[in-house]
Amino acid sequence: MSLNFDRVAIIGVGLLGSSLGLAMKARGLARHVVGVGHRQSSLDTALQVGAVDEATLSLSDAVTGADLIIIATPAGLVAPKLDQIRRLCAPDTIVTDVASTKRTICAHAHATWTAPRRFIGSHPMAGSDKYGPEHGHPDFYEGAVCLVEDSEGLEHRAREIVCALWAAVGARVLDVDPAQHDTMLARTSHIPHVVSAALASLAVRGGDVRFMIGNAFRDMTRIAASRPELWRDICLTNREAVLEGLREFQRDLEELTRELEAGNAPALDDFFRQGAEARRKAVES
Amino acid sequence: MSLNFDRVAIIGVGLLGSSLGLAMKARGLARHVVGVGHRQSSLDTALQVGAVDEATLSLSDAVTGADLIIIATPAGLVAPKLDQIRRLCAPDTIVTDVASTKRTICAHAHATWTAPRRFIGSHPMAGSDKYGPEHGHPDFYEGAVCLVEDSEGLEHRAREIVCALWAAVGARVLDVDPAQHDTMLARTSHIPHVVSAALASLAVRGGDVRFMIGNAFRDMTRIAASRPELWRDICLTNREAVLEGLREFQRDLEELTRELEAGNAPALDDFFRQGAEARRKAVES
Repeated sequence: MSLNFDRVAIIGVGLLGSSLGLAMKARGLARHVVGVGHRQSSLDTALQVGAVDEATLSLSDAVTGADLIIIATPAGLVAPKLDQIRRLCAPDTIVTDVASTKRTICAHAHATWTAPRRFIGSHPMAGSDKYGPEHGHPDFYEGAVCLVEDSEGLEHRAREIVCALWAAVGARVLDVDPAQHDTMLARTSHIPHVVSAALASLAVRGGDVRFMIGNAFRDMTRIAASRPELWRDICLTNREAVLEGLREFQRDLEELTRELEAGNAPALDDFFRQGAEARRKAVES
Repeated sequence: MSLNFDRVAIIGVGLLGSSLGLAMKARGLARHVVGVGHRQSSLDTALQVGAVDEATLSLSDAVTGADLIIIATPAGLVAPKLDQIRRLCAPDTIVTDVASTKRTICAHAHATWTAPRRFIGSHPMAGSDKYGPEHGHPDFYEGAVCLVEDSEGLEHRAREIVCALWAAVGARVLDVDPAQHDTMLARTSHIPHVVSAALASLAVRGGDVRFMIGNAFRDMTRIAASRPELWRDICLTNREAVLEGLREFQRDLEELTRELEAGNAPALDDFFRQGAEARRKAVES
């Protein structure tokens, strides 16, 4: 499929939005890209780095006449933005997002958007502890997996175009059911972020640990440096799955605690052996 | 201080023991290095890679006549090895170890070893998810921090020599009180390992997550691939501090769970903000 959008509106010109603008322009996928945000300084930077051709604080100016709209805000703002743009965009405008949670967002779109739906949820699994348009990169999505909503009631051609867009910027596209997406991502991403923040806090409450940290601590707390508001939103828009996984995680730690209290060496062996096998199964296979 | 050991015995020729043998030989610190272990295949490999000049299954053969003994076994075996070698080594033999926990080990040495003590506990903070003598490297300790026991009743010169040894193989030596070491390392290393294993297990119980993992999951579960028996021993030899830290960690997660159940956005913001600040404080300062 050859993609050639006439006017693309990117709502939110942070790392993901700006990188998508740069990626589309570098690949000749869009004639004109307009960025919209609520901070003039970010819009200025997005213009300077060439992520957008035009920048505005006005959502209606940005989306009017767009044939493609990307909502690249924190997860908690996607549904409100959908409500705001619903009546502004033309009937054939295709809309997608980049949020890390899908169930709440896609359910909201399903309930409020015209059928067959031209909003197709996306979750490109690319990220960084850096943020802001100044870190945008045209190859940001190269090699990443992009999970694209596969639900009832989507407009077939809109979905094809969204998939083609992600493929065109270098991502490997996989179909997901929004609810299953959120259940699994709670375990592979959202809970790990919660745990990373909790580990960092635990360590510094122990005193001046600066000379007591090794690579393990560095690796495990890297994502604790992410933007708080993003992860607040991710937890709130995937509350049920995060809570369910956290409770299971807590039960596992409680069991491990009991075995350690009892000095049960074989049980500790099993615990760490299972962890090592799980890691291999998840990552290396 | 110029170091020139005549006969060095390394008990345990895994990654850390073999690397120390290679490092000492590469820097001309030892005339003859003998490795002792319980698996002939590891001893053969240690010989092949040049980590030791001689290899034996007999502990008494290895340590007899040694002026320096390095105990490079898992943490749980250090105290038993100390008991075994106490009557075998000459009065002026200097002994150290490389275990990740210090309180139990140093307390055992204090209770059983002749005063002033010539066993000085060490913890070189270098590691890898690889193991075995085949991965040994002469520069393995370059740039690492090595925490060296600073307790009452140590022989001054023996301690100086152990510190000089670690400095000579490239480590930055810092003094630590064994109990304080264990309290802090529980939070910066031991609990992170427990949590990493639990996260890996949680993820794979959620289904086939292979395409749902990103860098965050990879970073946070890397150390789950470590050797189970090492981490079993570390937990058991630092049981009190690990349990204390784990309970505090679980209370933090319980609080976060309650706030998430209540949909308390500002509390989630604070939680992630504290984590980000803690990460900066621990790692970047």
